[in-house]
Amino acid sequence: MSAKLAVSRRIRATPYTPRVEALGVSDYSVVNHTVLPKGFGRSTADDYWHLREHVQIWDVSCQRQVQLRGPDAAKLAQLMTPRNLQTAITGQCLYVPIIDNNAGMINDPVLLKLADDHYWLSIADSDVALWAGGIAQGMGLDVTVDEPDVAPLAIQGPKAEDLMAQVFGEAVRAIGFFKFHYLDFKGEPLLIARSGYSRQGGFEIYLHKPDLALSLWDTLWQAGQAFDIAPGSPNLIERVEGGLLSYGNEFTRANNPLECGLQAYCNVDKNTDYIGRSALQKIIGEGPSQQIRGVLFDGSPCPPCASTWPLQADGDDAGYITTAIWSPRFRQNVALGMLGKRYWSPGQKVSVHSADGQIRHGTVTSLPFAD
Amino acid sequence: MSAKLAVSRRIRATPYTPRVEALGVSDYSVVNHTVLPKGFGRSTADDYWHLREHVQIWDVSCQRQVQLRGPDAAKLAQLMTPRNLQTAITGQCLYVPIIDNNAGMINDPVLLKLADDHYWLSIADSDVALWAGGIAQGMGLDVTVDEPDVAPLAIQGPKAEDLMAQVFGEAVRAIGFFKFHYLDFKGEPLLIARSGYSRQGGFEIYLHKPDLALSLWDTLWQAGQAFDIAPGSPNLIERVEGGLLSYGNEFTRANNPLECGLQAYCNVDKNTDYIGRSALQKIIGEGPSQQIRGVLFDGSPCPPCASTWPLQADGDDAGYITTAIWSPRFRQNVALGMLGKRYWSPGQKVSVHSADGQIRHGTVTSLPFAD
Repeated sequence: MSAKLAVSRRIRATPYTPRVEALGVSDYSVVNHTVLPKGFGRSTADDYWHLREHVQIWDVSCQRQVQLRGPDAAKLAQLMTPRNLQTAITGQCLYVPIIDNNAGMINDPVLLKLADDHYWLSIADSDVALWAGGIAQGMGLDVTVDEPDVAPLAIQGPKAEDLMAQVFGEAVRAIGFFKFHYLDFKGEPLLIARSGYSRQGGFEIYLHKPDLALSLWDTLWQAGQAFDIAPGSPNLIERVEGGLLSYGNEFTRANNPLECGLQAYCNVDKNTDYIGRSALQKIIGEGPSQQIRGVLFDGSPCPPCASTWPLQADGDDAGYITTAIWSPRFRQNVALGMLGKRYWSPGQKVSVHSADGQIRHGTVTSLPFAD
Repeated sequence: MSAKLAVSRRIRATPYTPRVEALGVSDYSVVNHTVLPKGFGRSTADDYWHLREHVQIWDVSCQRQVQLRGPDAAKLAQLMTPRNLQTAITGQCLYVPIIDNNAGMINDPVLLKLADDHYWLSIADSDVALWAGGIAQGMGLDVTVDEPDVAPLAIQGPKAEDLMAQVFGEAVRAIGFFKFHYLDFKGEPLLIARSGYSRQGGFEIYLHKPDLALSLWDTLWQAGQAFDIAPGSPNLIERVEGGLLSYGNEFTRANNPLECGLQAYCNVDKNTDYIGRSALQKIIGEGPSQQIRGVLFDGSPCPPCASTWPLQADGDDAGYITTAIWSPRFRQNVALGMLGKRYWSPGQKVSVHSADGQIRHGTVTSLPFAD
């Protein structure tokens, strides 16, 4: 596919879109009915090296916030995830699998606890507001579920902290990993978390005032000149090497948390009640029949993975690749995929049947490949 | 925006994608996490004239089917919409607004009644399976909600019936408007409805066997040569002129059915119980404060409408445009928009503040502009 993205109001622009367009965005994806800039005319490899060495500014407004607020907000949040939220504290970010009654993955957002009765779910690509709202409606819960226009902006890379300190002051350095503070920008306290969809470190600014967006972007951009700032986006090479999963790519509603390697977030303590608990308990008892792994494979740089590619071992179906790209660091193709139980051990040899018709030699690996 | 759509598994290809790509698709949109081909290198105007005169084949697999099946399927379907479903018959298609507790629009699918305990919702761009599933979960309903891989293919245009009769036999002519029959293709009964997202007539084939997709496409394509068939897509000029609304463009969850002109589907009879009934009753009592209208406006062909454009009348805020395009038939720009009550009468003069900075003279019209 090399077609253009057709323009309409339905696929929402973001408050940062004017700056993204001015900087020459060349590729968009669409997440949560919102554009996600994916490239600025440079190669993914160039963006990768830059991200590892300097600092980038990413428009991740597509990470929409599903807001739960009211007396039953905590109850609803817990109903939606097998992760135990009882010890969560205000100011904390928690990665939470959200599952249905069959333990099928509905989303894997970051939950932000804003107060005991106030949560945001910073979502991947599915309408979690409809799932949460339907449950609240059906159960008659005393909670408001909505999707406020919060526009997260990510500052990622090894120079992120120094840049952020210039704009928000030294206080930014005190924010712990997966914690958030409120720091002032033009008289407005902004929620700033140490988080982001890379392994290079950085922050996400959850801007709740869209009319500050261009001023925020410009301020970071100007201060960023001293740090070789560039516009960027979640980088496919970096995320595959880092083992960062993507809902809709590595897993779908057809998969359970154990298949995604998320056992650590699956609490089956009797005192925690959530949707899908008995299905999940059964899966834990039996163990998963397939699980996400890394795959390294040889040959020339592979094409983009637009649909799953079969994996074979000794002539048998061993699983499938979900995302693949050439790694300039490993000088091999790196991939994420779902491997059957018989074939998921690191070191297992597999053949990769990529969409270009080539058959390549691959090796199963544990994740992450590397930071 | 003139950026490319980035490739990934998350934005699903369809069973017809190989043919769409071979025919030179130039533009994609994304609906329900699935590609929607939007252009094949010709102008929207050329596609428009062709659609009005000949026949087109559209890959509308993005119209995903949300399936409700089980003893409580009818109850759940009725809970989701203010349209009275009690008189619906098997084999019927019904346009149904789906609303939340505040009467906010969640989607506007076509409901297909397959049996008394079996429904499909052929959805616009929001995850209705999560809304329906959440309600069913919360209320403990005895119904399975899922999203089977059905891939609708639309045959649209004045020659659609003749083409379909060549492929499926004369029986296709007996299918009434918004009704469906099952007709044989290679030994498999396919659900075929007289419906589609144009005013030029035609059919939608709800293919439930993806492995027949390429054979179905090729058979229609070959038979279509005698009818000047072309690949196409929902045409923006044709849909605006015809007053066909689009969820996410003309209206969102912030709008109620009366604002969308859907009063006819809002039954407030006491015997019908559905979510949002009391909110809707209040809105009906008070009357809507804004409503969708057509707007004709002058000047050169306008740019694509990527976000709403303000409308003014006598210096006041009169509403906003949601979709606009140059009509080669009217030789003016045609648009859909939301007009405030004081300004929604046909003939009202408005100024249109389009994204290119121009201010154009416009006139409010009733809908449709024309068939």
